[in-house]
Amino acid sequence: MIRRLDSQDPAFATQLAALAPAGESSASAVAARVAAIIADVRERGDAALLDYTRELDRAPVHQRSDIEVPLTRLQEALDGLPAEQRGALETAAQRIRDYHERQRQEGWQYHDAQGNLLGQRVTPLGRVGVYVPGGKASYPSSVLMNALPASVAGVADITMVVPTPEGQLNELVLAAACLAGVSRVLTIGGAQAVAALAYGTETIVAVDKIVGPGNAYVAEAKRQVFGRVGIDMVAGPSEILIICDGGTDPDWIAMDLFSQAEHDENAQSLLLCPDADYLDRVEAAIHRLLPEMERRDIIGKSLAARGALIRTRDLDEAVQLSNALAPEHLELSVEDPLTLVEGIQAAGAIFMGRYSAEALGDYCAGPNHVLPTSGTARFFSPLGVYDFQKRSSLIMCSAEGVRELGAVASILARGESLTAHARSAEMRLAKRSRAGD
Amino acid sequence: MIRRLDSQDPAFATQLAALAPAGESSASAVAARVAAIIADVRERGDAALLDYTRELDRAPVHQRSDIEVPLTRLQEALDGLPAEQRGALETAAQRIRDYHERQRQEGWQYHDAQGNLLGQRVTPLGRVGVYVPGGKASYPSSVLMNALPASVAGVADITMVVPTPEGQLNELVLAAACLAGVSRVLTIGGAQAVAALAYGTETIVAVDKIVGPGNAYVAEAKRQVFGRVGIDMVAGPSEILIICDGGTDPDWIAMDLFSQAEHDENAQSLLLCPDADYLDRVEAAIHRLLPEMERRDIIGKSLAARGALIRTRDLDEAVQLSNALAPEHLELSVEDPLTLVEGIQAAGAIFMGRYSAEALGDYCAGPNHVLPTSGTARFFSPLGVYDFQKRSSLIMCSAEGVRELGAVASILARGESLTAHARSAEMRLAKRSRAGD
Repeated sequence: MIRRLDSQDPAFATQLAALAPAGESSASAVAARVAAIIADVRERGDAALLDYTRELDRAPVHQRSDIEVPLTRLQEALDGLPAEQRGALETAAQRIRDYHERQRQEGWQYHDAQGNLLGQRVTPLGRVGVYVPGGKASYPSSVLMNALPASVAGVADITMVVPTPEGQLNELVLAAACLAGVSRVLTIGGAQAVAALAYGTETIVAVDKIVGPGNAYVAEAKRQVFGRVGIDMVAGPSEILIICDGGTDPDWIAMDLFSQAEHDENAQSLLLCPDADYLDRVEAAIHRLLPEMERRDIIGKSLAARGALIRTRDLDEAVQLSNALAPEHLELSVEDPLTLVEGIQAAGAIFMGRYSAEALGDYCAGPNHVLPTSGTARFFSPLGVYDFQKRSSLIMCSAEGVRELGAVASILARGESLTAHARSAEMRLAKRSRAGD
Repeated sequence: MIRRLDSQDPAFATQLAALAPAGESSASAVAARVAAIIADVRERGDAALLDYTRELDRAPVHQRSDIEVPLTRLQEALDGLPAEQRGALETAAQRIRDYHERQRQEGWQYHDAQGNLLGQRVTPLGRVGVYVPGGKASYPSSVLMNALPASVAGVADITMVVPTPEGQLNELVLAAACLAGVSRVLTIGGAQAVAALAYGTETIVAVDKIVGPGNAYVAEAKRQVFGRVGIDMVAGPSEILIICDGGTDPDWIAMDLFSQAEHDENAQSLLLCPDADYLDRVEAAIHRLLPEMERRDIIGKSLAARGALIRTRDLDEAVQLSNALAPEHLELSVEDPLTLVEGIQAAGAIFMGRYSAEALGDYCAGPNHVLPTSGTARFFSPLGVYDFQKRSSLIMCSAEGVRELGAVASILARGESLTAHARSAEMRLAKRSRAGD
């Protein structure tokens, strides 16, 4: 069901490494297929987009209007929800918006001692594409988490794409798009949707950045268009690492592991605890609870393939192991999480204390659920408002202030044999501008 | 020498498009070569690194210690500089540090109305690799601009790589590395250096992020390792767009165009002005000044290939054209730049007023000179301290605070058919943790 490991076992490092995400052995076939799709969409535009959508999503689309969802349809979807669902969605949207408002960055400027103005301008991106997975993973929460930060940043044009296999629209997804302030919804997906967003077609205006999770083809397509447009991150299988001191109800921890494992057979669920008896109790809870779960097949496969209950020497060692993995989700299910968190070097989101189930962060706590996976929390951050803002440096020299700067620039430019740079600076020292100052 | 265009010409859009950066037609050969080098370095480690360095840099390296520059050598280089150069380098370093200190971001947290703690932790990256171009483009200013923001962010381990064609070390580059707080210097470059930084070798510890400009091979290598490590941006040819109202000394503007063009034959220099007579005067200045320039061959080729003096209808149209191009460097050489800048939507760095030559920003004004090129200022920002910090979301629910969150998460999770998520939330509502609260 789920393997047991011990950090003191000489084979532990090898055993743990074997649980890492699958390598890139199959990736070159995906990359070639994606490259062909992107080239085709660049070449044939909407025609290619419709062809792929018919073929890959088995959706009955024959003309451009078939992939467009009218904005009135979004409001209808929201209005049509049961009151309880609508209330929950609205509460989640408000909480996510509140949290993200605190991430918005402002420009700043100052004058240096010589009177030159220096600063940084911060402006929203112009156009953003939001990818929302379709089919079995069509999640309204993804819409909120991806589109709301763009909305808070002030992005004027938010184009959402969501594949609709067999042409099925998800009412909750449309309702979430309504709450998130999306500008346009297109029922396309896969590498073809990423290509259309990056390069534009007859009916789709090219965006500046594409965000949102997707399958291997979507991830590869985002990687390939990176540079032409911005992307959020290269997403891999989802993962949780729980550090527990043995004081949390074992059923809660078992269910937290399940909640990660139910996403996907490739998802990873790890529990680290110094108490072997506690690991026994969690293992027993897993065996007892699994048969009750609707998604027990996926959970079982995920736990067997990549899950582990790991006995560590102590909590400090668990923190060290966590730092080496830089997990997407980290639960510190311990008595004093505020002390333990000080040692954490990299993690996408940190859930502290016994009540902070990862599932709360997935939906409504406020922070984003689009998080760096596969160890990339070493250098990536959660999706945020900052991903939808860009900065420009500001430099404004006065006639007086240019003197020290120009002299220094001249010396350094000549040291690099860039004499036009040097003379460009020196000219500002030698005389005043015709227009005066 | 340099073409003249008019924005009112029916062919203008086509003419301007023809000046865009070269397409990707030759890129697949580069990509394949780079992929082979990366695979080889991953496979053979230091041995491959030494082989490529001998072959491509014609450097006499035969063992691992041959590519390591002792840190004492950096201080010697600084101590050995002429006083004027040392002073200029130190002034530049201090100004760059001062500006970047203002970019450092701090974490924050708050309690929501239900008593849950929410926040964002901000921590420095652990290890960073800084790529510094070698040979004809070995620039000490690049060292300062790439390494200082990492240093200000608090990155503990900064590994600098700089190729040394024929084994030649650049004293100014080593001195700059000393001032910038670099931890280690290796005399390697090209795709092989990027591969070594991304994957590690016997002697090089893999880093979390690689920054710094380089040639087409370096840019492609960074693109290929993106995801395994972070990168700053995919750099293309450097470019300047100058908007002038006709009131600046034409010699100054000509020299500013030269200072961009002297970087590289592929660099781009554009001047936009509504006054045709002024463009005549700048063109005359170009013809008069070019023969004096040491790098006149490169400047001439760059201006002929990608430069243009463009008459626009008015300054507003010049701003619109600039927004469409999203230039790396933008000079607003006008009487009232603070008003004109309000209309700018995207640019890497904005130089305002007649005294603010781009060259000042390249060396010592304070802002970074590593800037987004080829229109990527639409979504990329200048290199900054924020590129060397990462964020983790913080979520800590109390026994009381979990109630609303748990109820909302349960409803939304069931709407997505993720019942383990739902039960994980519901369990926290049903009873208290064994450890109490």
